[in-house]
Amino acid sequence: MIISNIKIFLKKTFFHWFDEYQADSRYGLKGKLIIEKISDIQKITIIESLLYGKALLLNNCWMTAEFQEKQYHECLVHPALTSSEEIKKILIIGGGDGGTAKQCLLYKEVQHIDLVEIDNLVIKLSKKYLPSIGGNAWYDKRLNIKIEDGCKWIENCQDNSYDIVIIDGSDPVGPAEGLFNEKFFKDCYRILRKGGIFAMQSESPESFEKVHLETLKIIRKIFEYADPLYGHVSIYPSGYWSWIFGAKDSQRYNKPKAKRVKEISRFCEIWSPRWQNAAFNLITASLERKINQ
Amino acid sequence: MIISNIKIFLKKTFFHWFDEYQADSRYGLKGKLIIEKISDIQKITIIESLLYGKALLLNNCWMTAEFQEKQYHECLVHPALTSSEEIKKILIIGGGDGGTAKQCLLYKEVQHIDLVEIDNLVIKLSKKYLPSIGGNAWYDKRLNIKIEDGCKWIENCQDNSYDIVIIDGSDPVGPAEGLFNEKFFKDCYRILRKGGIFAMQSESPESFEKVHLETLKIIRKIFEYADPLYGHVSIYPSGYWSWIFGAKDSQRYNKPKAKRVKEISRFCEIWSPRWQNAAFNLITASLERKINQ
Repeated sequence: MIISNIKIFLKKTFFHWFDEYQADSRYGLKGKLIIEKISDIQKITIIESLLYGKALLLNNCWMTAEFQEKQYHECLVHPALTSSEEIKKILIIGGGDGGTAKQCLLYKEVQHIDLVEIDNLVIKLSKKYLPSIGGNAWYDKRLNIKIEDGCKWIENCQDNSYDIVIIDGSDPVGPAEGLFNEKFFKDCYRILRKGGIFAMQSESPESFEKVHLETLKIIRKIFEYADPLYGHVSIYPSGYWSWIFGAKDSQRYNKPKAKRVKEISRFCEIWSPRWQNAAFNLITASLERKINQ
Repeated sequence: MIISNIKIFLKKTFFHWFDEYQADSRYGLKGKLIIEKISDIQKITIIESLLYGKALLLNNCWMTAEFQEKQYHECLVHPALTSSEEIKKILIIGGGDGGTAKQCLLYKEVQHIDLVEIDNLVIKLSKKYLPSIGGNAWYDKRLNIKIEDGCKWIENCQDNSYDIVIIDGSDPVGPAEGLFNEKFFKDCYRILRKGGIFAMQSESPESFEKVHLETLKIIRKIFEYADPLYGHVSIYPSGYWSWIFGAKDSQRYNKPKAKRVKEISRFCEIWSPRWQNAAFNLITASLERKINQ
């Protein structure tokens, strides 16, 4: 009884609610503040949450958490990397927490990753306070970090530079705004090799339906093949999230290669070929009508 | 500018946050209180939320909302009703908001529904304040409402009484506790006809993983065939939700009948045969390992 009362006292004293507010709803985790900094780009907050471990917010929006990061990163990476013809050279735009790079580096075939993050402080704080999310990626010689605007990087890239192009940006308001327009996606197409795959997070089909649908429409204009995939990330608005995959030569993102599946499956908490096939088809009746309009 | 300031002033004055707290996380909607009552069973709160319209909480947990009800009710009802051999006679345990009955009554073949709700006040307030959720169901002569404990009702039912048995209860704490145990499920099996289907909500596989897995285990011991289905309900803990379907003669819940699909599809926002097939397979790698243990 006494111990239980002490626990309640400690919780009330040292733990607070950290909430993301979106369109008259909010999602909060109880925790304590580890660090808060204002970079040139944005506000960066890292907390220790009781439910999901250490967690990162950018401008008060949940980006990742130790026990929610696989829900996002596996879905962004594995549909692309299990099925691209080659996966030697990869570009990640954003991804400053290291989680996307960590998933990519599970594959032995990967030889080189350019990770282009606009905000050096996100990388610095993630390395220091969220080491489990990037894991060994930060010390892997295949990872080449560039602190630069992703739009500019892509503009300056030569044609057919990468086997995989991954857009791992935040919401299309603020620093990631330029990552959601036709010119940018055309450049993504141009720098992608023929048997390669383009992958991006494409917001919540519930909380950000309009952005999701518009993004899919643009991607489908540019890429010969493109499809959305739907899954769950509890810390993101509505908990219901989406990713889009594009390719030039076929719907190859639908066909994971057995050898690579075998290589990564034991590390996966969310992704499996069965899960992926379902996630490419878990489209609600009303969303399907809107997409086919 | 002035109008925008007036709007902000009105929001601050008349709207408040209503949150459900679960394991050091919270999910809140901004809105204004319509009514709050304490019945013999529980606290019943109805608010007008800005995001999802009128919404119902029982003991401070989100139960339903005008623009979130289909996300739950369609998933509970249509996999069962499109595929059962007959759908003449249906039992709903719980379901006091009327949403499950409304979905069932879309089918012309349905002749009789017993809706057994323990709390009369939930029905009374839902009829009055959430009329769009029950819709015309409340005035449909096929609907027979009984205010009674669902466990007792089922105990007293004769064998092979129903084509469909639907458990639409709240979380297994408080009034719905008896709806999550072996004896109760054995009775569900007993009163279900051979070509019929059993359907239940089975909690969040993320926020309530243990309850979800244990429930599936029990159902699989009792029913010859049983499978979980996964989807999204933004107002529920983690946003990631599950339902379980059971049958005696085959995995018939997997095979919607074309005639019934045609009858209901135009009313559906979430459910479609494609969506359903995906939802039966959207199982995360770690959950699949745990289920197969």
